[in-house]
Amino acid sequence: MSDSPPRKLYNTAVVGATGMVGQEFLKTITARKFPVGELKLLATSRSAGKKLLVGEREFEVEETNPQSFEGCDFAFISATSQASRDYAPAAAKAGAIAIDDSSVFRMEADVPLVVPEINADDVAWHKGIIAIPNCTTTPLVLCLWPLHRVNPIKRVIVDTYQSVSGTGAAAVQELDAQSRRILDGAEAVPHVYPHQIAFNLIPEIDSFRDDGYTKEEWKIAVETRKIMHEEDIAISATCVRVPVFVSHSEAVHVEFSRPMSADEARDILSHAPGVVVQDDPAVSLYPHPWAAAGQDPVYVGRIRKDTSHPNGIAFWHASDNLRKGAALNAIQIAEEVIARDLV
Amino acid sequence: MSDSPPRKLYNTAVVGATGMVGQEFLKTITARKFPVGELKLLATSRSAGKKLLVGEREFEVEETNPQSFEGCDFAFISATSQASRDYAPAAAKAGAIAIDDSSVFRMEADVPLVVPEINADDVAWHKGIIAIPNCTTTPLVLCLWPLHRVNPIKRVIVDTYQSVSGTGAAAVQELDAQSRRILDGAEAVPHVYPHQIAFNLIPEIDSFRDDGYTKEEWKIAVETRKIMHEEDIAISATCVRVPVFVSHSEAVHVEFSRPMSADEARDILSHAPGVVVQDDPAVSLYPHPWAAAGQDPVYVGRIRKDTSHPNGIAFWHASDNLRKGAALNAIQIAEEVIARDLV
Repeated sequence: MSDSPPRKLYNTAVVGATGMVGQEFLKTITARKFPVGELKLLATSRSAGKKLLVGEREFEVEETNPQSFEGCDFAFISATSQASRDYAPAAAKAGAIAIDDSSVFRMEADVPLVVPEINADDVAWHKGIIAIPNCTTTPLVLCLWPLHRVNPIKRVIVDTYQSVSGTGAAAVQELDAQSRRILDGAEAVPHVYPHQIAFNLIPEIDSFRDDGYTKEEWKIAVETRKIMHEEDIAISATCVRVPVFVSHSEAVHVEFSRPMSADEARDILSHAPGVVVQDDPAVSLYPHPWAAAGQDPVYVGRIRKDTSHPNGIAFWHASDNLRKGAALNAIQIAEEVIARDLV
Repeated sequence: MSDSPPRKLYNTAVVGATGMVGQEFLKTITARKFPVGELKLLATSRSAGKKLLVGEREFEVEETNPQSFEGCDFAFISATSQASRDYAPAAAKAGAIAIDDSSVFRMEADVPLVVPEINADDVAWHKGIIAIPNCTTTPLVLCLWPLHRVNPIKRVIVDTYQSVSGTGAAAVQELDAQSRRILDGAEAVPHVYPHQIAFNLIPEIDSFRDDGYTKEEWKIAVETRKIMHEEDIAISATCVRVPVFVSHSEAVHVEFSRPMSADEARDILSHAPGVVVQDDPAVSLYPHPWAAAGQDPVYVGRIRKDTSHPNGIAFWHASDNLRKGAALNAIQIAEEVIARDLV
């Protein structure tokens, strides 16, 4: 007979269970053997009644309402901003910890914004809501943080190449349908995006701010600073939607306080948690989104001295925006909360 | 009866006439009424005997050989690097002016590298060969130059989003075929590129250098400095192939000597030759490659203060890489040569 106590299980609600991140979330809790007790799959009334397989068990999707969170330990929310606004406070009030994927609460002073490999300790001061960063921020900070600890970062320029799955299932469908039409010589009519996305690029993600940046670009800057607890790093981004289904990629140019060699950067990144270095130009080994899709790590390569600045390093990374960019990071946060006995 | 003298005509050879740039070239000389005398369409033996329509006249393609250029005034060369190496000196020796689209001669001290809107005067010192810049450099310098004249540029970071037509017809075919296969649920086997290009990104264009940059990235830096006659501008690029058929796009971050407002940059660019400003976020107006394809100008938008540097401006541009990026620029150089009576 074993003396080990029965493993504690956690009642878990998933808001947006039928969405792309929700689906990845359900796959990931199964793969990671997350200690789920009762599992509640929540969505809009449109999806209520749908049956979803989680592992080998079938669950029926219910319509979310403010009472959905009674008795829950965790509420994972990845749906619309409005759903987060409505249900994260409701879940917290019901005594659950809401782990929220929207931008609604990320910059609130009393909401931790967490990438566990970097600032896991921040989960300790949660008041019921913990936010996960935008899917462009998480892979970037995973690369920046280990470098910054060795040689403080002054400035980051990042240009993104973001897949349509970041927008959701309708956008994936739009890229598919438009691509078929264009290949058939027909015209593509945009619905989800302001312009055709098939065989095209759209430098507009989220709404425009008065300073000419999009909110998506602004988020990269403010979220990176909050996660790293470094208010003084200068960051500028251009965010571009590309005709790729899954995985976001970024070209990054970093200025450090002192010179850093490419070998040193490569060595630091090769020991960084959550990061895998793929960097051998001789055999065309570097990250690309097709290969990163369905994988957990952030892949980084093309690491080189940035010849435009004495303290510069340039690199390129790609990672699955639904995994570490969203579902996986959320589950890792819950695992930290459990490990620290905060639930 | 008119007293105006008969218009002088120029015997013209086109090496690579069946290629993507060659085809665009033939369209453009017709559209611009370039004063062609005898027209010689040249290609490899594989294409010899093919018939091509230029305007309303049919021409037969001949195999290029060193004697092809006898009696020619201009030889436009856009084929392989080897063809440029073989035929540009042969054309010059035969008394023609070779206008060459390869990277072979661009950085030679006795070869002008010309974007007519910027350094047309450099055509004067040609020794038989004039080079046109890489299709990533030309649109970039068209945007940088007018800004630089007002407020000297210190540093440029540029990340590119390059279409497959920059590689040639086989790559266009590969993107088409691979896209169909992926949409059908089949696998895509790369031939032209080291990895699948359909619904993917490849951060490798041209060969790798020892410093970790690709030659494509290095070209942007050295060509920009040569065209602008400014050896001290620091430039760093990451060049990425994207699943777009035509038009190259670039995200650009510029540091000037002094602060520049977005309005000032927008005003300067709106008066710059060869450049069209498309910049109204409120109606999602900004450049995108699908709209730029088949057009002459370099479109620029997303113009804003770069918040990561007190003297910074960020912008985004897109332009047809076969037009201003190649064929059009070559013809404009010939027009400058004619206007200056240098032929």
